[in-house]
Amino acid sequence: MSTAVATKGLEGIVATSSSICWIDGDAGVLSYRGIDIHQLAKHSTFEETTYLLWFGKLPNAAELAAFTAELSAARTISPKVIDLLRSVPTDATPMQVLRTATSLLSIYDADEADSSHDANVRKSYRLTAQIAMIVALFDRIRKGKPVVEADPTLTHAGNFLWMLNGEKPSETATRALDIALILHADHELNASTFAARVIAATLADIHSAVTGAIGALKGPLHGGANEATMRLLYAIDKAGADPVEYVKQMFAEKKKISGFGHRVYHTEDPRATHLRRMSEELGKAAGNTKWFDLSQKIEAFVKQEKKLNANVDFYSASTYTTLGIDIDLFTPIFAVSRISGWAAHVIEQHDDNRLIRPRAEYVGPAYPTPYTRIGQR
Amino acid sequence: MSTAVATKGLEGIVATSSSICWIDGDAGVLSYRGIDIHQLAKHSTFEETTYLLWFGKLPNAAELAAFTAELSAARTISPKVIDLLRSVPTDATPMQVLRTATSLLSIYDADEADSSHDANVRKSYRLTAQIAMIVALFDRIRKGKPVVEADPTLTHAGNFLWMLNGEKPSETATRALDIALILHADHELNASTFAARVIAATLADIHSAVTGAIGALKGPLHGGANEATMRLLYAIDKAGADPVEYVKQMFAEKKKISGFGHRVYHTEDPRATHLRRMSEELGKAAGNTKWFDLSQKIEAFVKQEKKLNANVDFYSASTYTTLGIDIDLFTPIFAVSRISGWAAHVIEQHDDNRLIRPRAEYVGPAYPTPYTRIGQR
Repeated sequence: MSTAVATKGLEGIVATSSSICWIDGDAGVLSYRGIDIHQLAKHSTFEETTYLLWFGKLPNAAELAAFTAELSAARTISPKVIDLLRSVPTDATPMQVLRTATSLLSIYDADEADSSHDANVRKSYRLTAQIAMIVALFDRIRKGKPVVEADPTLTHAGNFLWMLNGEKPSETATRALDIALILHADHELNASTFAARVIAATLADIHSAVTGAIGALKGPLHGGANEATMRLLYAIDKAGADPVEYVKQMFAEKKKISGFGHRVYHTEDPRATHLRRMSEELGKAAGNTKWFDLSQKIEAFVKQEKKLNANVDFYSASTYTTLGIDIDLFTPIFAVSRISGWAAHVIEQHDDNRLIRPRAEYVGPAYPTPYTRIGQR
Repeated sequence: MSTAVATKGLEGIVATSSSICWIDGDAGVLSYRGIDIHQLAKHSTFEETTYLLWFGKLPNAAELAAFTAELSAARTISPKVIDLLRSVPTDATPMQVLRTATSLLSIYDADEADSSHDANVRKSYRLTAQIAMIVALFDRIRKGKPVVEADPTLTHAGNFLWMLNGEKPSETATRALDIALILHADHELNASTFAARVIAATLADIHSAVTGAIGALKGPLHGGANEATMRLLYAIDKAGADPVEYVKQMFAEKKKISGFGHRVYHTEDPRATHLRRMSEELGKAAGNTKWFDLSQKIEAFVKQEKKLNANVDFYSASTYTTLGIDIDLFTPIFAVSRISGWAAHVIEQHDDNRLIRPRAEYVGPAYPTPYTRIGQR
C-alpha cells in the first residue's frame, strides 16, 4: 500500500462503465445516449430528454404522452414535507432545505424499501416532480407568499415557474428554462452523480443516493459556481467598475473567477454556447442586456489573459438573473434538472451493481506506533 | 475514452492519500494513526480513539478531559429536530430518520456556512454527540416511551445506552458497546467514508457529507450486513434447524451468507476477533450463549466450505442482540461510531482539497446518434 501513488481527485481514472453520457473534452462534445447536446438543446424538451436518459432512446408520441402524464401525476407531495418547509427558518439556505426535504420524501414513499428496476423508475418520476416542487414551495413560504398548486397542464419547466412565481410564465421564459434544464440534465461522473453512484453501490435506495448528490451539488466547486459568478457581476455593477479592470485586479490578488475552466473540457464547454445565446436573447427581450454585456467583457478578458473558456456556470448566472430567479435558487434549479441524470445513473448502477470502494495511500504515522498509557503522554 | 477499461468498483485504485487509517488486508492489520486496533480495543475508549482520529495523536489527561467535556456539552439538540422525530410514522426505518434528522441539524448549526478547519472540528463534536442522541430519541419515541435527557456524567457509550433504555447501563454493557464503537470508528475509504469525501471535495459542508455517508451506510452491502446476519440467526432458531444443514441448503440454493468475506481483508478481519470474544463473554454473563453458539457453528462451516472468514458484521449481530439492542438499530449504531471516522476524513479532505471527479467508460449508443423528429420514431 505505501508504495502506491495517489491519483488525487481520481482525475482521468475510469470508475465505471456507463451508457448514459459521452463527453469528448478535447472536441467539446457532450452527448446523452449518443445524441449531441446541441441537437437536444435545439429540438428536444426536458421531458423528452429525461425519457432518453432513463430509457436509452427517444420516445415516440405515445411514449412521450405517457411519460408526461406520469411525471405530471407525480406532482403531489406529502403534507408532512410541506410542514417541514414551514417549520424551518426563512433564512435557511434552499439547498439545506432541499437536501432535508428530499431525504424526508423517502419516509412517505411506498416504494422506499424496493430498489428493483421498476421501483427505481417509479421513484424517479416522483423525485423529479417533487424536487422541483420543493424548491418552488420553499421559496414561496420563505417569502411569506401563499403556495401555488401544481398545474397538470403545464410542462415541467412551465409548472416550476408557475409554482415559483404564481403567474403563468411566458413562452420565452418557459423555453429558456427548459433548455437550461436540458443542458444541465446529465454530465457523466460529475461529483454529485459520482456521489449518488457510490451511495447506490451499497444497494442503498435512490432517495439516499439523491440526498447525497444534493449535498455534493451544494459545494462551491460544483453547483455553487454560478452563484459566485452572479455575485461577481453584482459587485462589479455596484462598484460601477470597468469589468476588465476589476477582473485584472482580482487576478493581481491571485483570486479565481468562477465560471471558467473545467476538469473535463479543454475547449469551449458546449453548454456555454447555448447559455451565452440565451443570456443575450433574454436580455434583449427584457430590454436589459446589462448582465450579458458585463459577462461578455469578462469572458473575452479571461480567455485572453488565462486561456480559460467559460463553462456551463458562467452564462447561466446572467440567464437565470434575467429570468428573475433569486441567486440562491441557481443551485436548487441545477438539482431540478440534474435529478434526471442522477436517477438514470442510480438505475444503471443498481441494474449491474458492484460496491465502489477504492483504497487510500497511507501517509500517516508508521505502523505499529505503540499505544502509550495516558500517564506517559 | 472508449479504449479505457473500467475498474469496476475502483477495486485496488488509490483515490487519495490519507494519514488516518492503515489497513493491511493480507496480514489482517487495522490501525488508526498507526496504532493497532487490538491495542485500542484493549486499552482505549471511544472518546480517546475519536481524539486520536481527529487530532492525529493520543490525548494527554488534560486534552482528554477537555475533549470529553466538549463532547458532553454538545448533547443538546434543537427542539425542531425532536419535532421531526415525533412527526414521522413510528414504522419509518431508523436509518431514514437518522439521515433526515442529520440533514436537518445543519439548519440549526451556527457554523453551517463555515467549512474552515476549526469550524469543522466544532461541528464534528456536535454531529458525534447528536447522531447518538437522534438514534436513541427516535427509538424511545417510536415505542411510545418518554424521552430521556442526556446525562453529562456518562461516557458516550454509557449515555447512549442510558438514553436508549432509560436505565443506567451496567459496566459490562457500557464497555462492550464502547469497544464496538472503537472497532467501527474508521475503516479507511469504505463506501460511506468515500461518499463523504466525494461530497466534501466539492467544498460542501460536513453535514452534507455526513448525510450522504449515512445514506451509503444504509445499503445492505455496507451497514446492513449485520442485520442480515441476525435475521439468519433468528430464522435458524425459529425453524429449530441445525445451523450447518441450514447453511448447506442456502449454499445449494446459491444464497449468500452475510457477514463473511471482505473487499480488503484476505485473512481474519481483526475486528471480528474482538466481537467474537465479546459475543461469547456477554452471552456467558447473560446466561444465554445461544446466539454465540449458533454463530460459531456457522463460522466454522463457512470457513471450511467457502474459505471465507467472518468479518466485522458477523459477530456484531449476536453481540448487539445480547446487549438487548433491536435489529434495526444495528446500522444506526454503526453510524453512532463511524461518525468519528467520517468527521476525521471530511476534516482531512477540506484541509487539502481536490475535487473527486473520475471518468466513465462509455458503452452506450455511438456518437453521433442522429436526433429524429417525433413523427419519425
